[in-house]
Amino acid sequence: MLKAIFFDIDDTLYDSTSLTTMARKNSIRAMIDAGLPVSDEEELSKLLEKVIQKFGSNYSRHYDELLKELGVAWNPKIIAAGVVAYEHTKAGYLKPFPRIVPILLKLKEKYKLGVISNGLAVKQWEKLIGLGIHHLFDVVATSEELKYEKPQKEIFEFAVKKLNLKPEECAVVGDKLDSDILGGNRAGMHTIRILKGKHRNEKPASKAERPDFEIADISEIFEVLEKMK
Amino acid sequence: MLKAIFFDIDDTLYDSTSLTTMARKNSIRAMIDAGLPVSDEEELSKLLEKVIQKFGSNYSRHYDELLKELGVAWNPKIIAAGVVAYEHTKAGYLKPFPRIVPILLKLKEKYKLGVISNGLAVKQWEKLIGLGIHHLFDVVATSEELKYEKPQKEIFEFAVKKLNLKPEECAVVGDKLDSDILGGNRAGMHTIRILKGKHRNEKPASKAERPDFEIADISEIFEVLEKMK
Repeated sequence: MLKAIFFDIDDTLYDSTSLTTMARKNSIRAMIDAGLPVSDEEELSKLLEKVIQKFGSNYSRHYDELLKELGVAWNPKIIAAGVVAYEHTKAGYLKPFPRIVPILLKLKEKYKLGVISNGLAVKQWEKLIGLGIHHLFDVVATSEELKYEKPQKEIFEFAVKKLNLKPEECAVVGDKLDSDILGGNRAGMHTIRILKGKHRNEKPASKAERPDFEIADISEIFEVLEKMK
Repeated sequence: MLKAIFFDIDDTLYDSTSLTTMARKNSIRAMIDAGLPVSDEEELSKLLEKVIQKFGSNYSRHYDELLKELGVAWNPKIIAAGVVAYEHTKAGYLKPFPRIVPILLKLKEKYKLGVISNGLAVKQWEKLIGLGIHHLFDVVATSEELKYEKPQKEIFEFAVKKLNLKPEECAVVGDKLDSDILGGNRAGMHTIRILKGKHRNEKPASKAERPDFEIADISEIFEVLEKMK
């Protein structure tokens, strides 16, 4: 019998793809407004993407590196313009997907709820708090704290054990086949893929990435839970 | 003849005292809400103040240190709650003092405008951008970039020279006697003290800290400028 449901955060609980896309776009526009001597948004967008790939998404000086790539001298006005635009846009987009909150509340009546997330612990908690859902979860497992990351099965096993459950009593809901679904399958949990965000059109690369269920929207989870019985 | 006016940022252009007070208060409340096992807001407020004194206001891990001081294990939920509450409160309070914007626009018709600020360049620019006034200044001098800080006269001299002016052609507007006014006097500029924020009741410690003029509100600057003629 199912006793717990674990959620991924980005593109599962909120629209991370739109947030990132729009925040980067607005940061580029703000930097142009603040005096960046290049105004091709497309070109800047690609260069910023390259910088983020190179230094990782948790690096705190992407805009400093963007200026270096452009051969532009360090400029605190331009950098600050990018930071402020990013933060303002983030505040506007960091909202739960429609129906997430009432559905989590309804699920909470019958199941334990958890989060399994790759990333820095404080940063991931900031998202849950910004989304206003931080009080809803019985366990939040982050890769920074556990030194294991999805799809490694240890991070899933930690979350399951934390609730004194067996893997077959737990389900994972996430958008990424090679992370949420692969890891959940490896750990012996039920896996539910949610078709949201930039990975929604991807196909499983192997049998191990095949989810038990696919849903287009969180509201379909109740049908899936019925089928599991 | 007066040709330029230089402004301090905190408690001169916006209500930094209220922002800091309310942001710290709300961060403490959010940390209690997130599970901090101490709930005396007064005690926590004093302890946080102590931590900020010890590590400086630009240190990025005040809440981590607060937990250490309390003997509480590192907890990303509590830390993130403090960070998010601080940032949300900041967004609400980072507004120009009433009348600042139309008055700067009016002053700009006749004078060059500048900012002289102690602090990290990107952080100070973030304030100007958040306030929506970053396009109004002809020069922004920060202590991080210049390696001199108020009340050292070099930072004032830099700003004056940047506009090809003489000190006697420039005025400084700021709230702090031992910083804005002392430094402006040392550099040979006109000094205007604005009675705002937590330093508003302080008395000059020496003749060198005595401002040429005192105003209770920025709208009084026009009378001062008339008197200077």
